[in-house]
Amino acid sequence: MKQFNPVTQEDLAYFRGLLPGRVFSAEEISTDYDHDEMTEYGHYMPEAVLQAASTEDVQAVLRYCNRRHIAVTPRGAGTGLCGGCVAVHGGVVLSTEKMKKVLEVDTRNMTATVEPGVLLMEFPKALEGTGLFYPPDPGEKTATMGGNAMTNAGGMRAVRYGVTRDYVLGMEVVLADGTILDLGGKTVKTSSGYSLIDLMIGSEGTLGFLTKLTVKLVPEPKVNLSLLMPFDDLDACIEAVPKVLACGCEPTAVEFMEREVISCAETYLGKQFPDTSADAYLLVRLDGASADALQPSIKTLTDLVLSIGARDVLLADTDERKESIWNARGAFLEAIKGSTPTMDECDVVVPRDNIPAFVHRMVEIGKEAGIRIRSFGHAGDGNLHIYVCRDQLPEDEWKKKVAYVMAQLYEKARALHGQVSGEHGIGHAKREFLRESAGERQMDLMRGIKAVFDPNGILNPGKVI
Amino acid sequence: MKQFNPVTQEDLAYFRGLLPGRVFSAEEISTDYDHDEMTEYGHYMPEAVLQAASTEDVQAVLRYCNRRHIAVTPRGAGTGLCGGCVAVHGGVVLSTEKMKKVLEVDTRNMTATVEPGVLLMEFPKALEGTGLFYPPDPGEKTATMGGNAMTNAGGMRAVRYGVTRDYVLGMEVVLADGTILDLGGKTVKTSSGYSLIDLMIGSEGTLGFLTKLTVKLVPEPKVNLSLLMPFDDLDACIEAVPKVLACGCEPTAVEFMEREVISCAETYLGKQFPDTSADAYLLVRLDGASADALQPSIKTLTDLVLSIGARDVLLADTDERKESIWNARGAFLEAIKGSTPTMDECDVVVPRDNIPAFVHRMVEIGKEAGIRIRSFGHAGDGNLHIYVCRDQLPEDEWKKKVAYVMAQLYEKARALHGQVSGEHGIGHAKREFLRESAGERQMDLMRGIKAVFDPNGILNPGKVI
Repeated sequence: MKQFNPVTQEDLAYFRGLLPGRVFSAEEISTDYDHDEMTEYGHYMPEAVLQAASTEDVQAVLRYCNRRHIAVTPRGAGTGLCGGCVAVHGGVVLSTEKMKKVLEVDTRNMTATVEPGVLLMEFPKALEGTGLFYPPDPGEKTATMGGNAMTNAGGMRAVRYGVTRDYVLGMEVVLADGTILDLGGKTVKTSSGYSLIDLMIGSEGTLGFLTKLTVKLVPEPKVNLSLLMPFDDLDACIEAVPKVLACGCEPTAVEFMEREVISCAETYLGKQFPDTSADAYLLVRLDGASADALQPSIKTLTDLVLSIGARDVLLADTDERKESIWNARGAFLEAIKGSTPTMDECDVVVPRDNIPAFVHRMVEIGKEAGIRIRSFGHAGDGNLHIYVCRDQLPEDEWKKKVAYVMAQLYEKARALHGQVSGEHGIGHAKREFLRESAGERQMDLMRGIKAVFDPNGILNPGKVI
Repeated sequence: MKQFNPVTQEDLAYFRGLLPGRVFSAEEISTDYDHDEMTEYGHYMPEAVLQAASTEDVQAVLRYCNRRHIAVTPRGAGTGLCGGCVAVHGGVVLSTEKMKKVLEVDTRNMTATVEPGVLLMEFPKALEGTGLFYPPDPGEKTATMGGNAMTNAGGMRAVRYGVTRDYVLGMEVVLADGTILDLGGKTVKTSSGYSLIDLMIGSEGTLGFLTKLTVKLVPEPKVNLSLLMPFDDLDACIEAVPKVLACGCEPTAVEFMEREVISCAETYLGKQFPDTSADAYLLVRLDGASADALQPSIKTLTDLVLSIGARDVLLADTDERKESIWNARGAFLEAIKGSTPTMDECDVVVPRDNIPAFVHRMVEIGKEAGIRIRSFGHAGDGNLHIYVCRDQLPEDEWKKKVAYVMAQLYEKARALHGQVSGEHGIGHAKREFLRESAGERQMDLMRGIKAVFDPNGILNPGKVI
């Protein structure tokens, strides 16, 4: 375990000179900074919160902290689910919330360059009128684009468009010692040495501090529509997924939903879901150049799913109908969260074909532990979000049960050739599970890489490795 | 510079015991093994050639060589263009030519797992009848899939489908000390620690020896057709590219061709190209679910390019017509190679929008040096292949001119925010240019990573870094 120096009055004076009005210590620090979206993983108050406004700010802070051995925790909007942006070793939180400029939209190269603090929900405004869009679409729209890059966030549209990694072309990062690196750029392919940029993506701020991001844009599909397919049970619903993916329709999103999670969302939103007939639904979104161009895909999909157990196919091609379905889907996390005092989360990804086996076991585990488990997820990716709800359980029973459930879930995911996290990352909360899954040698390699980039270990200590 | 031990009789005896009938030394070694496709970069005869037939073979050889400090050069089909698979430090060449099994085609997860020596041209046979295909499509079909993964090969279809990196889901690699690592798997997304698999991809065998590869497959498009668009000059042709990419037609390939290169291919193939009217052509391929489904894209594209300078749009929708065009395109490299005793090559990639500026400068450089330069390339990617032809130049003049031309080309690419290699890699021939482009600090990071994976430096020494 690395030892870090505490933040002294002298350090604070230096930071205040450097970042006037953007340094907060002691009581000035909002309690927002002591956690992310998963309060279950504990509260860690940093010794200071610093708001960087430029690459030079980041460079100066890192140089200073590297020399002084002060831990630095990078933080975007704090919407993570694994404690990746909380200061578990104290020191300073270095926030990107003042770095929110869209620096360039280059329509000819179909790229955009942004500061890391730009929110996912704000970015589309910068693209209005260009005919271009940025496909990564995590549920949490108040997340930052920098945070998305550093956790390799996924989202709904990953089935067709891929994950954040597939859209990151260039990065400016500051190393722990203050060196500024330009990685990649606006080129769309490269085979020029080890892919340092791919190493940075998903590294959760442990290898470098992201200060600029260049992303790939693609032509916006002119129309989209969704097909809601009710099934008698989850088995039939999930069994349909590989066939839907293989039928040549190029779905943008393939999500599964269970009645009990939908009910949660109905209560949370105070709105009815457009269908109440079934226990399980597959929701498929199609993008295309025109409604006409999508007709063959709609027909192929409809014929297919009706032949393999769907009761019906509801076409959502009006904005109102689409919103009523997707708003429900978008509210799942908050709805589940609102239904229990606290919860724990698991974000495993398994080969798509193994989803039924995983879901079966998940239901069993819930019964074994006598605890309420809710799930939904990106069926098209094999990526499930599973929430273990505390409800009214007393502390000791909750701790025991949740530990059992998590151990069983990760064990099953491993047995099914899955990975610990599909899109949320490791943070500090999932490190044990990563170690079990990757094994000691891979962890050693990661630690070796960390030492090459950050010999003093000041960048986001206690995370990932 | 690392010092390696020579391969002794005792070493050969060990290898012969391990790999009976698959060890070659001294005169037994075919001269094929002393070079790749670019003989201009020199001939290096290994001390022994070993043919591995299994992961265990690779593991035993690496363990032994790591202990004895013998250099190991991994080699697939030897079709590279930067000397990546030649034994510049002697030692053994460890070849994958006996590891050619397609181990599994998993239609439900849409993946295939292969040994590294499977040839790109042989792989489609394993997919027949599945309705699935593997999009990466480098010009060199006798290359191995392992070599493609280790150089992050690109190819024609990268505009729509991406490069090899985008299709590698899992790898089994053997580290220099014999440790077998399983990286990734059949999951299609992950955010589970540093992406060691992305580090391996494009590392040219310097970090580990690839023994198994799991790739993503996608539904095969039911139809494809190509549009050949003659332009008065290269400028107008290249200027059309960003507009073609932004019009929403999702082209699979966008290639540019010049009259003089086409003439070369006509001579080489003894066949006429279907159009002789123009100096420059844009060739666009579209994939789709049906001919009908492609009609709107054909119309949009045709209207677009006719409005921005194309003289005509020739539709190639019969196999015969498609072949006559794409065979010519496929023969460019061999045709240019056949037109000169030797040549040097440059594979830069620039932001797409900078292709016209780069091509202008390339023509100028050729004139300044008084040397014949031929080029073609993936306009849709910004990736150009440029060939400097020696023709009848005497040795000293050739050396001087080619050094000048290469320095100028890479300088221009750098000024235009490009990268040294789009898809061929660095090998030993392009190391100087990588260093100039990436800078000392990035090279230091790469060397640090190398030392973590391969402390004795036995794996493909003298390459990339």
